[in-house]
Amino acid sequence: MTNFVKRSGLEKEEKITIPPEKLSKILDIAQKRFARFGLTKTTMSDIADDLGVSKASLYYYFPDKECIFKKVVFKEQADFCLQMKKIQESDKKINTVLTEYIENRIEYLKALINLGQLSHEAFHAHTPLYSMLGKEFFEREKGIIAEVLKKAADRNEIQKVNIDEYAGFFVHVLRSLRLFTLGRKELWEQGSIDKEVKKEYMFFTKIFLKSIEKV
Amino acid sequence: MTNFVKRSGLEKEEKITIPPEKLSKILDIAQKRFARFGLTKTTMSDIADDLGVSKASLYYYFPDKECIFKKVVFKEQADFCLQMKKIQESDKKINTVLTEYIENRIEYLKALINLGQLSHEAFHAHTPLYSMLGKEFFEREKGIIAEVLKKAADRNEIQKVNIDEYAGFFVHVLRSLRLFTLGRKELWEQGSIDKEVKKEYMFFTKIFLKSIEKV
Repeated sequence: MTNFVKRSGLEKEEKITIPPEKLSKILDIAQKRFARFGLTKTTMSDIADDLGVSKASLYYYFPDKECIFKKVVFKEQADFCLQMKKIQESDKKINTVLTEYIENRIEYLKALINLGQLSHEAFHAHTPLYSMLGKEFFEREKGIIAEVLKKAADRNEIQKVNIDEYAGFFVHVLRSLRLFTLGRKELWEQGSIDKEVKKEYMFFTKIFLKSIEKV
Repeated sequence: MTNFVKRSGLEKEEKITIPPEKLSKILDIAQKRFARFGLTKTTMSDIADDLGVSKASLYYYFPDKECIFKKVVFKEQADFCLQMKKIQESDKKINTVLTEYIENRIEYLKALINLGQLSHEAFHAHTPLYSMLGKEFFEREKGIIAEVLKKAADRNEIQKVNIDEYAGFFVHVLRSLRLFTLGRKELWEQGSIDKEVKKEYMFFTKIFLKSIEKV
């Protein structure tokens, strides 16, 4: 059973419970709708219609479409974290792990852009929502990178550094670079947001790794 | 004689010429007014009054207050570049030069915040103006850093790297970090924007230097 935030997609305390199979079905159907029409153009009625249920029964579980969108994004985040867990457990060297991290992170970004049918305008119209999603994800990403650095330190691949500080700064730089790029209208128009972000992530990762690797 | 942008503070082609002593006086007086009351609360009338001239004669040279503000900022940028030139010519080691660069860059940021009597809201209200100011300055900063790297390479202090690429990325990361921090409302409220930016600049500079230094 999953606890559910009620009333607002952004923050609220009241919770009700929704059976996992039901939740899973709603999120699958909603994901398809979002990916096709975007967050802005999707309504609660659309999702209820796709599910073949009444609008009232959908509202029973979800206060608004933002709340459903948020849950769909959390599912994508969980997929990303699962991928990363697999990569971590494979005991590959840190440069391989971080490269695969970047690649998966870009796939997640692409999924998110696709999910919201995002454009420069849509991204800015929903800034509080995306900012909240990013904030929650930041801590998880930091945890993943800290784990990667810890393993590399145990294997004597990197110098002794303050793991938490370095992990936090790594994720923070990626986030700052990403947000700057998401603000560049011309890249949205060219459809090259993900390519530009990937290029910058790779460059930073190279510098980051060189600064901590054992010589 | 200085060429002058007319009609709009952001971009226009028509130019008229203003005698340098007159320009210097206007900018000095305007700088004091901006620093005290901020861009938002300053009017063309205020500046004309401070100068003891009619509003019409001020409008003869400047289309709006944003244009004057821009010129005042350019003066601050020129001061920063002059400082940097001195530091570069002193032939200090790259880590000293970059540390002094960061310190001067933070002083310039503080001057800019002070000049606009900036707050989180004021910064966001004038986003196009600050974004334009930042864009023009970016290329100059990149040139400064390229020069610093070139000198360090000539003195055999750093590895062979693509100087332009590294200089551009260095300035780009600082910019991305700065913009993210300028978006954090709680730091404005605490008055700790400059401290936070400096901390991040220093951390990144450390990583950047370690990644290129000769071993």
